[in-house]
Amino acid sequence: MVAWRRYLHQHPELSFQEKETSRWIAARLREIGCEVKEGIGGYGIVASVRGEKPGPAIALRTDFDALPIQDEKKTDYISTVPGVMHACGHDAHTATMLAIAAFYQANKDQFAGERRFLFQPAEEVSPGGAIGMINDGAIDGIDAVYGVHLWTPFPYGTVATRSGPFMAAPDEIYIDITGKGGHGALPHETVDAVLVGSALVQALQTIVSRSVNPLDPSVVTIGSFHAGSTANVIAERCRLVGTVRTFSEDVRAFVRGRLEAIVSHTASMYGAQASLEYRDGYPTVVNDAKEAERFFKVAVEAFDAESVKESTLIMAGEDFAYYLREVPGCFMFVGAGNPECGATFPHHHPRFDIDERAMLKSAKLMVAMAEDFAAEALSGESEG
Amino acid sequence: MVAWRRYLHQHPELSFQEKETSRWIAARLREIGCEVKEGIGGYGIVASVRGEKPGPAIALRTDFDALPIQDEKKTDYISTVPGVMHACGHDAHTATMLAIAAFYQANKDQFAGERRFLFQPAEEVSPGGAIGMINDGAIDGIDAVYGVHLWTPFPYGTVATRSGPFMAAPDEIYIDITGKGGHGALPHETVDAVLVGSALVQALQTIVSRSVNPLDPSVVTIGSFHAGSTANVIAERCRLVGTVRTFSEDVRAFVRGRLEAIVSHTASMYGAQASLEYRDGYPTVVNDAKEAERFFKVAVEAFDAESVKESTLIMAGEDFAYYLREVPGCFMFVGAGNPECGATFPHHHPRFDIDERAMLKSAKLMVAMAEDFAAEALSGESEG
Amino acid sequence: MVAWRRYLHQHPELSFQEKETSRWIAARLREIGCEVKEGIGGYGIVASVRGEKPGPAIALRTDFDALPIQDEKKTDYISTVPGVMHACGHDAHTATMLAIAAFYQANKDQFAGERRFLFQPAEEVSPGGAIGMINDGAIDGIDAVYGVHLWTPFPYGTVATRSGPFMAAPDEIYIDITGKGGHGALPHETVDAVLVGSALVQALQTIVSRSVNPLDPSVVTIGSFHAGSTANVIAERCRLVGTVRTFSEDVRAFVRGRLEAIVSHTASMYGAQASLEYRDGYPTVVNDAKEAERFFKVAVEAFDAESVKESTLIMAGEDFAYYLREVPGCFMFVGAGNPECGATFPHHHPRFDIDERAMLKSAKLMVAMAEDFAAEALSGESEG
Amino acid sequence: MVAWRRYLHQHPELSFQEKETSRWIAARLREIGCEVKEGIGGYGIVASVRGEKPGPAIALRTDFDALPIQDEKKTDYISTVPGVMHACGHDAHTATMLAIAAFYQANKDQFAGERRFLFQPAEEVSPGGAIGMINDGAIDGIDAVYGVHLWTPFPYGTVATRSGPFMAAPDEIYIDITGKGGHGALPHETVDAVLVGSALVQALQTIVSRSVNPLDPSVVTIGSFHAGSTANVIAERCRLVGTVRTFSEDVRAFVRGRLEAIVSHTASMYGAQASLEYRDGYPTVVNDAKEAERFFKVAVEAFDAESVKESTLIMAGEDFAYYLREVPGCFMFVGAGNPECGATFPHHHPRFDIDERAMLKSAKLMVAMAEDFAAEALSGESEG
Repeated sequence: MVAWRRYLHQHPELSFQEKETSRWIAARLREIGCEVKEGIGGYGIVASVRGEKPGPAIALRTDFDALPIQDEKKTDYISTVPGVMHACGHDAHTATMLAIAAFYQANKDQFAGERRFLFQPAEEVSPGGAIGMINDGAIDGIDAVYGVHLWTPFPYGTVATRSGPFMAAPDEIYIDITGKGGHGALPHETVDAVLVGSALVQALQTIVSRSVNPLDPSVVTIGSFHAGSTANVIAERCRLVGTVRTFSEDVRAFVRGRLEAIVSHTASMYGAQASLEYRDGYPTVVNDAKEAERFFKVAVEAFDAESVKESTLIMAGEDFAYYLREVPGCFMFVGAGNPECGATFPHHHPRFDIDERAMLKSAKLMVAMAEDFAAEALSGESEG
Repeated sequence: MVAWRRYLHQHPELSFQEKETSRWIAARLREIGCEVKEGIGGYGIVASVRGEKPGPAIALRTDFDALPIQDEKKTDYISTVPGVMHACGHDAHTATMLAIAAFYQANKDQFAGERRFLFQPAEEVSPGGAIGMINDGAIDGIDAVYGVHLWTPFPYGTVATRSGPFMAAPDEIYIDITGKGGHGALPHETVDAVLVGSALVQALQTIVSRSVNPLDPSVVTIGSFHAGSTANVIAERCRLVGTVRTFSEDVRAFVRGRLEAIVSHTASMYGAQASLEYRDGYPTVVNDAKEAERFFKVAVEAFDAESVKESTLIMAGEDFAYYLREVPGCFMFVGAGNPECGATFPHHHPRFDIDERAMLKSAKLMVAMAEDFAAEALSGESEG
Repeated sequence: MVAWRRYLHQHPELSFQEKETSRWIAARLREIGCEVKEGIGGYGIVASVRGEKPGPAIALRTDFDALPIQDEKKTDYISTVPGVMHACGHDAHTATMLAIAAFYQANKDQFAGERRFLFQPAEEVSPGGAIGMINDGAIDGIDAVYGVHLWTPFPYGTVATRSGPFMAAPDEIYIDITGKGGHGALPHETVDAVLVGSALVQALQTIVSRSVNPLDPSVVTIGSFHAGSTANVIAERCRLVGTVRTFSEDVRAFVRGRLEAIVSHTASMYGAQASLEYRDGYPTVVNDAKEAERFFKVAVEAFDAESVKESTLIMAGEDFAYYLREVPGCFMFVGAGNPECGATFPHHHPRFDIDERAMLKSAKLMVAMAEDFAAEALSGESEG
Repeated sequence: MVAWRRYLHQHPELSFQEKETSRWIAARLREIGCEVKEGIGGYGIVASVRGEKPGPAIALRTDFDALPIQDEKKTDYISTVPGVMHACGHDAHTATMLAIAAFYQANKDQFAGERRFLFQPAEEVSPGGAIGMINDGAIDGIDAVYGVHLWTPFPYGTVATRSGPFMAAPDEIYIDITGKGGHGALPHETVDAVLVGSALVQALQTIVSRSVNPLDPSVVTIGSFHAGSTANVIAERCRLVGTVRTFSEDVRAFVRGRLEAIVSHTASMYGAQASLEYRDGYPTVVNDAKEAERFFKVAVEAFDAESVKESTLIMAGEDFAYYLREVPGCFMFVGAGNPECGATFPHHHPRFDIDERAMLKSAKLMVAMAEDFAAEALSGESEG
């Protein structure tokens, strides 16, 4: 598992460009002996192992794209591709999944039904790779879906998730303001786009501070503000780009409505024009209540009560959300932070690394979830 | 005069780079027969003609730099230099001054004292060419200084000026804000430089709206606002660039003080750091009261009462201000707008042009001012 | 219980003025036969019943002050005191507690240890009546403390609470700005307190929108803004009054720090002076984790699983928080809303009323909690 | 003149309530022997003296209302009416006008035509007393109108005015915002009127800072801001009251338009409703160019060149503006400040007083203006 992970770590590919990574995974899966379908939703791969007995079809998902970040770690397995790096742990996710596939392949007589392994490309970049895989039938016939993210903010040894809404819907906003440019000394002949943009940023603060229920966590960020080019010319145009994070469709729609009202009226107030492009990102990751309950039971059995945490809401997004819209399931975090092995940096940091032992925890957790589900399903059937 | 102007118009050079223009002017002045001193304050030239009788030394000033603008006029004398254009009339100023020099050279027996012609480079770009010329002695021994700007917002046929403060001090401001960047979904871990910059733009409005006496015209403009680069990263830095326009040293100092207070406290309020670089531009053009009075008398005599206007304050700046700090004098506008010859565009416009007849008006006005001053000086002496 | 509640409802007294209410309660308690101590923390009363067997001392708390609201209900038991009304249910709390006292008095042979009944005045008005009662020994020797609030936003039949932080710390802020008044037409001679106050309100929005972790619910509200008296005089003074709600001491201290920085720098920016008075309200109500767990167990047994809810965080405050700082315990909500009996208005509304059957639920819940605690304590002892 | 002024000073009456003052003036005028018409536009009085020769009809105007201010001067002629005071010099204006009337009455053989004395009530309070007097025929048949304001910001000895726009149009604005009130801890259930009002105050700054030509002096002041009543209730309503000052109908209409847009869009942006009541105050005082020229000639003759100043624009308003809309004329300031006699306080100050000698200057100036006009008129006629 470690060797696989390090190979992938040294050969990262950006989202939607994971051609070689995909080939490499398929080759490994064939070595293992799985059924392999390539080209599912682009570079996606679906592998299956069927147990000797009939039973439920359970999907386990990994992702395998890297990020446009220059690797600055001091290890002997740093990225060989300049400016591209597995700074989010997808390499480890994939190595883990290969190990799980091998495990099931070796134990066909021990389990009932199908275990399907979703190797998904492009988790990092909207619209993500999940939609394509779903459209290409990746989860057809599936009864439950599980996924894990290794997570350095949590220490190695812990596992965590949360029932219901878990990870945010990360939408993007693009606001273009058009005023009327002119001489910096003659403001009365212009509509000052810098002023309109600034007024807008101020007004947008009130969405979170006044309009959204304080019990519904939400974020509206303007990450970039660009207008004008010189000191003595009043800017005609201003472009604001930002992100919105919410945990329910209601709040998401509400924030969007407030944005539209504030953008439109702020522009009109100053005689400017403005457009808001609201790009839906991934939906909120919403864990099935029963599957989350399963996690808390299974994880305590697999590890111990101390290791199992209820996670807070997580402001980051995940396109695992799309699978959860279709099939009951649970997305889980496995702690991978450890100062002793340098795994102290946040995800997307140039020196990001993990405690590689977390891969084993992750494999154990996913298998435990799948087998508990299967046991319950079979028991239900036999009872029924 | 027209031929000279058009030659210059076709061969523009940018501020502080007017090497060939300077050579060409010096050659013309030598043809005329003036005393010529080159290299005065860079590419500046001082030419003199001395009358046969003793009398006052009077300076007349022109400027000869062009602008980084692509000529878009439809005439047969458009600029031959891509992206550079005499879009402010300095070509015509210079042609006029050559004609005046030739006139005085041809009439040495008709006037008393020295007439000195200041051909100044780099009027368009701070710190301007005037300081260098003054430092190189261009106005040593001078009793009065006059200058004209052809002005298309005023129709051909009119002449105008104003006693006391006339044109604004055009200062520049550069504000750098440093917050703390971070993930767009985690604002609490950051200091959002977009927010600080926006709050600053809002607060700066109050300088003009509340702090400066409403009877003292002033402008504070932020022309450019740049921060951040992407949707989901909170910007660490923000840069605001702008201009301040005032008409007195008191108001200028007051506005600067308000800027410093607002920048400093806005940054501190949000836990950011900010620096304000305040670059003094040219001082306010302040016409000598007596010389402005001379204008109103002389211009009515030279033209007619209808043609002579009291100008409003002008928000643009001029480094002629530096001469007026040293020597009494007057800066005057000569109307050069005329829809019939396409002279309808504002200064610095790609299709800017003038009614070329305004050059003659300008020459007549400057000579009339100089000779009225001389007559008064001589009469004063003979009386004394 | 209903008769008692309606009597109290018709005879409300404001916080810290509950003289007659206190006498009436004491009289009822004496009729019941309890030990009664009056004058505990002002008009507070502590009553006790001791079981025949030794065992733990458990406190149950009610409150009995009313609000300065005019009763606008259409019932035959409306308030007889103009402008004063039991619009929060404290009348029903008290009636319930009398019933519980009577129950225990009648069943002395059935329980072990002491059951102590805290009749607390002044829950509605900071600093609240709890501190005084605690200081006068009301919970000395107590092993656990429970309290209930009838709650009309929850339907009759439900009961709810939450482990850990449950109800907000409701602090108050008083901001006084002093600028420099003057003629409305001469802003440059003044420091405009309306402007400073308005800028402050805008800047305060960023505490919640940018500075506090979006996962930590918080509110900063300016409820009242008063400045100036007439159209053409610029206001010298401005007073802002508001509330802050937080759920942890860390967030509370952080918000306070942000307030101080924003108030101070906003005032300084405009040359004004400002003071912030931050009045700590009640602390956050923090339920003991084990006692909250007890609630979820006991309530399901006492009622049914459907009726038992995990409450969201509640933005209102409660001085029950003080008891929970001293002794483990749990504060619980009992649903009292019911459209069929007009109990549809929020607390503090002039037409507030409850479904009176909720009193019985409340009594049952508190007794069940107390007896479960006692049973566990005795079992622990016997085991130990 | 001093005795009259002090009598009036001790017996002030508020605007539109000057019954006794009016009677007292009429009595004095009858003693003098003028034609007197009472009840012109309320308590207004028109008195006339006709010269023996025919000639122009010239009106001189005074005002006689006092202010709701408590006199805090230390003199033996302080106001005898608590809370009412001649704190603007109208007492002195009136005493001066009586003296002028007496002068003309005594010199009927020395002048040609009619001299009409307008004793106007209610100058301090919109809509002012001038309209009523004009409607009642006070200036019918009048050829020119002059008026003086004694002015303590100018030192005793100076006189001043300005051609064209001179004193501001002082309009009033009343903005009512209706949001949705609610609990201070639940902002999402409300529309916070304090927030909307604050945002409005911020946005209104841009009218002067960005929208009006910086060469057109203008002021937008919110003098009073009232919303809410307590800390933990979000305000439903907010009332802003303020003043607008402009010097031309164009700018006035433009500012009003900007106000309407900003009020309307700010409210809509937040889901609130807002109304703007814009109350036109007096128009701008616009002196006739020829009559202002007359002032500069006549005043130099009557006093000396040193004493005569061109005034800046004055931000205060005057209902003398209405007369100037109908008849050519000039409104003039006569310096009345003098530290030696305690005349150092601004108008409307509780310790306001004047150098009483300014009354004589004022009388001399008005007579000189009238007689110069008459002389010119007669000379024109004889020439014609």
